[in-house]
Amino acid sequence: MTRGPNAGLIGARDAQARLATPCLLLDVDAFEHNLAAMMDLARRYRRQVRPHVKAHKCAMVGRHQLEAGAVGLCCATVREAEVIAEAGLEGILVTSPVTAPAMIERLAHAHARVGDLAVVVDSAAGVEALARGIGAGRPLGVLVEIDVGQSRTGVTRPEDAVRLARRIEELPQLRYRGVQAYSGHLQHVPAHVDRKAKAAEQWARLRLFLDALSADGLPPEIVTGGGTGTHLLDLEEGPFTEIQPGSYLFMDKQYGAIELAPGGSAPFRTSLTVATRVISANQPNLAVVDAGFKAMATDAGPALVAGGTAAGAAYQFMGDEHGGLRFGAGAVRPAVGDLVTLVAPHCDPTVNLHDWFHVMKDGRLVDIWRIDARGY
Amino acid sequence: MTRGPNAGLIGARDAQARLATPCLLLDVDAFEHNLAAMMDLARRYRRQVRPHVKAHKCAMVGRHQLEAGAVGLCCATVREAEVIAEAGLEGILVTSPVTAPAMIERLAHAHARVGDLAVVVDSAAGVEALARGIGAGRPLGVLVEIDVGQSRTGVTRPEDAVRLARRIEELPQLRYRGVQAYSGHLQHVPAHVDRKAKAAEQWARLRLFLDALSADGLPPEIVTGGGTGTHLLDLEEGPFTEIQPGSYLFMDKQYGAIELAPGGSAPFRTSLTVATRVISANQPNLAVVDAGFKAMATDAGPALVAGGTAAGAAYQFMGDEHGGLRFGAGAVRPAVGDLVTLVAPHCDPTVNLHDWFHVMKDGRLVDIWRIDARGY
Repeated sequence: MTRGPNAGLIGARDAQARLATPCLLLDVDAFEHNLAAMMDLARRYRRQVRPHVKAHKCAMVGRHQLEAGAVGLCCATVREAEVIAEAGLEGILVTSPVTAPAMIERLAHAHARVGDLAVVVDSAAGVEALARGIGAGRPLGVLVEIDVGQSRTGVTRPEDAVRLARRIEELPQLRYRGVQAYSGHLQHVPAHVDRKAKAAEQWARLRLFLDALSADGLPPEIVTGGGTGTHLLDLEEGPFTEIQPGSYLFMDKQYGAIELAPGGSAPFRTSLTVATRVISANQPNLAVVDAGFKAMATDAGPALVAGGTAAGAAYQFMGDEHGGLRFGAGAVRPAVGDLVTLVAPHCDPTVNLHDWFHVMKDGRLVDIWRIDARGY
Repeated sequence: MTRGPNAGLIGARDAQARLATPCLLLDVDAFEHNLAAMMDLARRYRRQVRPHVKAHKCAMVGRHQLEAGAVGLCCATVREAEVIAEAGLEGILVTSPVTAPAMIERLAHAHARVGDLAVVVDSAAGVEALARGIGAGRPLGVLVEIDVGQSRTGVTRPEDAVRLARRIEELPQLRYRGVQAYSGHLQHVPAHVDRKAKAAEQWARLRLFLDALSADGLPPEIVTGGGTGTHLLDLEEGPFTEIQPGSYLFMDKQYGAIELAPGGSAPFRTSLTVATRVISANQPNLAVVDAGFKAMATDAGPALVAGGTAAGAAYQFMGDEHGGLRFGAGAVRPAVGDLVTLVAPHCDPTVNLHDWFHVMKDGRLVDIWRIDARGY
């Protein structure tokens, strides 16, 4: 397996100076700190963590998460589940409904490779399609997805959840495992107290569903949901058996800007940066770098300058392959060829643009991990 | 070479129904129309076309462009140049300055493989770095990049262009080929008449540089620039020997919205769409599809619904792997599992998210082309 154009730099003293850019750097100390900090919190509150592969799309990172104590791994796509299954990792939960026969066929292949794979469903047609597509053999785990306020996927009424769960129980190809309720729209509410109030409303709605299922003899074994933004609230007081955080590993600009714990003491550190180089500096107070729309996702505004010789500059997108660093008058600007590191605005779709994590320790390149499930 | 999860569907009658989504569809009839239409225009005005690989990142598409009569291929990155050189295609121009020694080393390898490779430069440090990195052997072609109004890369004064050109001529490792002047900020000016007025200002600036170079005995053999938005203006009246269009092949939402030719008769057709599937439909007037931030670039707003059973709906991004189709009250909504096709907001960074073009003819999948230079 190739490890990309920087493979020859592993262990080299001057690796950082010679990196082909733009590329992703992963600070392994911050990464390991984040891995351990989330597991410590979960143990304190006696909950499980099933971290989300959508943030990193990397079997090696998933392996580290399981070794740290995760109960399994969430996957947003069938492709992610395939990669995790091929790596021999267990406890896979596909967190989006899979409805097309061709995708269910691939899900069935992944299911045949591992002992423990489940998928969410939110429609009667979806349940029947899964049963038809999965075939004989070990039944496929299924969770009913519930909408508790995001208004995207999930059933919206307790009676629909009961109906789907009952039908799953009837079908020999499927095995009812529980429910998923994810509130993506709460993850970035800035103030902890506001996020808590909103989360409590969602939990109250979720409890109506849990009560209806229990009253019908269908108490869920798994109640999964929550992300990095609500992780502490969900662990402390939510009606979940497990949470699904992803971005805690990396801490992008969006999560860096919110009050993750009361009082603002951030439990996680920024481990992921985009390395870029100055390619031109002919305009006043501007240095042009080689990272633009194709190096960082644009759905969450501009990147932050993390370090290098450009501290204090403001990044702006300037095209597919170009970014600009704006400096105040009189600031010392980096020279053409200098390396600058940026904190990605939104980590998940930024990681999805790259093929490799360049694992850094104390400024040295110590390993390169493939972002296996990127694209498909 | 694998051709992805849909490889088994080539030639199948029901391929479209069974496609693994989200994925890119390329209508080969529209694609060939666009290829021919651009070359016909260029021949009429006796200019060359050096189409931009940044739009498609695919050696197979590049081969079609050369076969249609292109003089060569523009590449935005060293990676694109490597892919095009490995495919044995000629006439490569790298359109961004390459300044880092590691990247120049890779450029030198690509240069050693092909007969005709050139790169732009916009600084004295860049010229010296190229000369140091390229080594002995055939000299590397170099063009001086000129800023005529975009305020990004390029030299800003005619005397700087002369100084760089003269230094390039002095260095035995380099060969002076001409100049590049790209006006990216004009490409999407909506009205043809406004775009023409602005382009004329840029041409006037460019002519000052061309005159200064000629006066100094350094007349450029190549004057390259222009894109899909200004293609007609640049061919008709611009001071260019060649133009560098990319998006004309695909025609995304952005280019579909502007008046490309006077009177609005569009010379090109939309050939590229994103195929996505309905995965959930529990909310009123909403269908949730499997294409979000990771299937389409977000720098140019939401996608347009192109077809399928969702005509008339409005697309919105709903997360990394989710999109929403909003329907008017009473509209017939697609069912869970239905295929919907979308016109990408901005083609270049959308293509960059995918690994494969699914080549369609009359609704059948006839081939799959790899997007070779995606990532790096």
